Amino acid sequence: MKLDRLGALAQPTDRKVLLFVLDGLGGLPMRPGGLTALEAATTPHLDELARAGTCGLHEPVGPGITPGSGPGHLALFGYDPLVYETGRGVLEALGIEFPLESTDIAIRANFCTLDGSGRVSDRRAGRISTEEALPLAERLDSIEMAGASCFVRHVREHRFVIVIRPDEPVAADVDDTDPGRTGEPPVDPHPRNEASAVAADLMRSWLGHAGEVLADQPVANMVLLRGASSRPAWPLFRDVFGMRASATAAYPMYRGVASLIGMQATAVPDGAANLVPAYRELVTDFDFSFLHFKSPDKAGEDGDFDRKVAVIEEADAIVPELMASGPDVTIVTGDHSTPALLRNHSWHPVPFLIHGGPARADAADNFGETACRTGTHGLRRGCELMPLATARAGRFAKYGA
Amino acid sequence: MKLDRLGALAQPTDRKVLLFVLDGLGGLPMRPGGLTALEAATTPHLDELARAGTCGLHEPVGPGITPGSGPGHLALFGYDPLVYETGRGVLEALGIEFPLESTDIAIRANFCTLDGSGRVSDRRAGRISTEEALPLAERLDSIEMAGASCFVRHVREHRFVIVIRPDEPVAADVDDTDPGRTGEPPVDPHPRNEASAVAADLMRSWLGHAGEVLADQPVANMVLLRGASSRPAWPLFRDVFGMRASATAAYPMYRGVASLIGMQATAVPDGAANLVPAYRELVTDFDFSFLHFKSPDKAGEDGDFDRKVAVIEEADAIVPELMASGPDVTIVTGDHSTPALLRNHSWHPVPFLIHGGPARADAADNFGETACRTGTHGLRRGCELMPLATARAGRFAKYGA
Repeated sequence: MKLDRLGALAQPTDRKVLLFVLDGLGGLPMRPGGLTALEAATTPHLDELARAGTCGLHEPVGPGITPGSGPGHLALFGYDPLVYETGRGVLEALGIEFPLESTDIAIRANFCTLDGSGRVSDRRAGRISTEEALPLAERLDSIEMAGASCFVRHVREHRFVIVIRPDEPVAADVDDTDPGRTGEPPVDPHPRNEASAVAADLMRSWLGHAGEVLADQPVANMVLLRGASSRPAWPLFRDVFGMRASATAAYPMYRGVASLIGMQATAVPDGAANLVPAYRELVTDFDFSFLHFKSPDKAGEDGDFDRKVAVIEEADAIVPELMASGPDVTIVTGDHSTPALLRNHSWHPVPFLIHGGPARADAADNFGETACRTGTHGLRRGCELMPLATARAGRFAKYGA
Repeated sequence: MKLDRLGALAQPTDRKVLLFVLDGLGGLPMRPGGLTALEAATTPHLDELARAGTCGLHEPVGPGITPGSGPGHLALFGYDPLVYETGRGVLEALGIEFPLESTDIAIRANFCTLDGSGRVSDRRAGRISTEEALPLAERLDSIEMAGASCFVRHVREHRFVIVIRPDEPVAADVDDTDPGRTGEPPVDPHPRNEASAVAADLMRSWLGHAGEVLADQPVANMVLLRGASSRPAWPLFRDVFGMRASATAAYPMYRGVASLIGMQATAVPDGAANLVPAYRELVTDFDFSFLHFKSPDKAGEDGDFDRKVAVIEEADAIVPELMASGPDVTIVTGDHSTPALLRNHSWHPVPFLIHGGPARADAADNFGETACRTGTHGLRRGCELMPLATARAGRFAKYGA
């Protein structure tokens, strides 16, 4: 359903919705017939929510598609990630918590090495260390040029972010300058449409200044640009679901995605226990709260099944305190699967539960992939969870007479 | 998910995917509470694949929609048949294995009878026999006219195919000339848009020549045209899924549909056993192999439940040899249901299994309609099977950062 049509149905109540995301929650057994990490974990509180609530599985993007963190979270926020696509530059800027303004053009950048004839001899400048790269990024940050303000923020090793803030708003559909292989010169920043010609000119101009700044460098003597993109102008979460929304996360990437749709972001130290006091404070002022817990994804990416079990148990331990803080409707799920078996994100459907509000009986009596398969929700698209939870909070009026 | 967006995710590996289609596989019990043909068949090898793999049911087109062979197979190839519609003329030409070129206009044609006043008195020329119709079609094949080459190929009884190959590429959205009932004159070939005006002129011109050729005939004295269409310019399978693809089938229709999306087609004699040596030969050079087995559909259309059971067992018998030839991920399914009870294609969901690659445990412990209902995939659209199998072969990169 289109978001503007959902927005037309939103109606106020005092009922609160909580979205508790265990990043990378879904998994696979380490051997055929075994349990997943969620199934192997001892999770009495999540099991109780599953028993009292309703369960299902969701695909954040689509069948067979492995979601990145951005698309996975947009889906959980109710935004179809195939419709609402974020540029890579914007995601990178959000990931380092750069305060993007609406007209900003965000670009991912690499230090690279050009040979004497201007051809790229190393696309990553010998994977220059953070210690060496940081002062170079600071020098690039001082570039001044006509028509725009420019900002450079170092990310890690050869990677950094450029933000160009043009004096007038412009489109930013510009091709990458990275030729994708060595032995070729950097590609000219080519605009993909007429509206992006100014952005391409600004990028070309910035590259000219950068070449001068880096001329004395033996290795990191030039920059390659990728993923130029603007902050998207999407419908705001509060206009779609009629709820003032807060986002609490230890990592800037997740706060950044939430802030793209107008959620108020709060940083907390890593660890499930830190989410509890933050939630207690926010629940009075906000109708909707998103709490992000990163650890299951990290354990999955490390291939550490036992640690994934342990951090899921860490999440389970805070459930009683969260529930005592008064959400009326609670979703617990992941933004994608990260099986320790694969050491990576995967396409496998993610278990979810929705607790609170009027609902049918449900056969799922614990929180796990197999039990959720028997739940009343069946297999859903990720972006369907928010409408279901919003309805259960009594926050949608009837559609049509 | 749009095919060009899948294509952007495709990444190379050496893992092979096999699609083994038992045409018309799905069925119904002959009496309430009974078994389907697939359930009644003794299929130890397919049951083992179902047990070790994951199962589900799919609807090739949509709920309640009975698929033709073209849409059914397009869905299995990952192409939504509601988006990728093939003209009937093209399908008819593929069905007789006419080597269509990209600019060809293919048209289904009937011999008909006109009365003295030019009105259609029999839309099928008395269902003229193949023996009588064949020489008439050969005479029509010799028609020459300005602006195009023309070909006529007889199909069966009153039916044949006309292919017009214009000197310059043109659109071919032209109305049928069949008035749909007797007592009316044939309809003028009317272009549905400006770009199709030339095609309409060519069809009108061809009809003028045909009228002269058939003027001496007492019964088959004219031709009615339907389903004018061009070979569609669809995304190629290798660009969508990143796999070099082969199609092996005894019947030209299935090779033809596969060739529309760039699969390399191989003809084999009818019968499951003939697929094995063909697959052994193709599996080294191709990443994806489609094997087509026609017999279950024919038995279903004949209303012969017992023969359908027998030919499904014939298919089961080749499974060990196929699996020994080294597919990493295997789909076994049908392109639609053909219940012997109905003697026809039907809309009932089709059982499928996917074997190989990382997957969750699955309750389905045999290959049948009832067991597949309990499988981990639930009810899917037919075009979702290919993305799921491609993911399991590790051939899709992550979507978004």
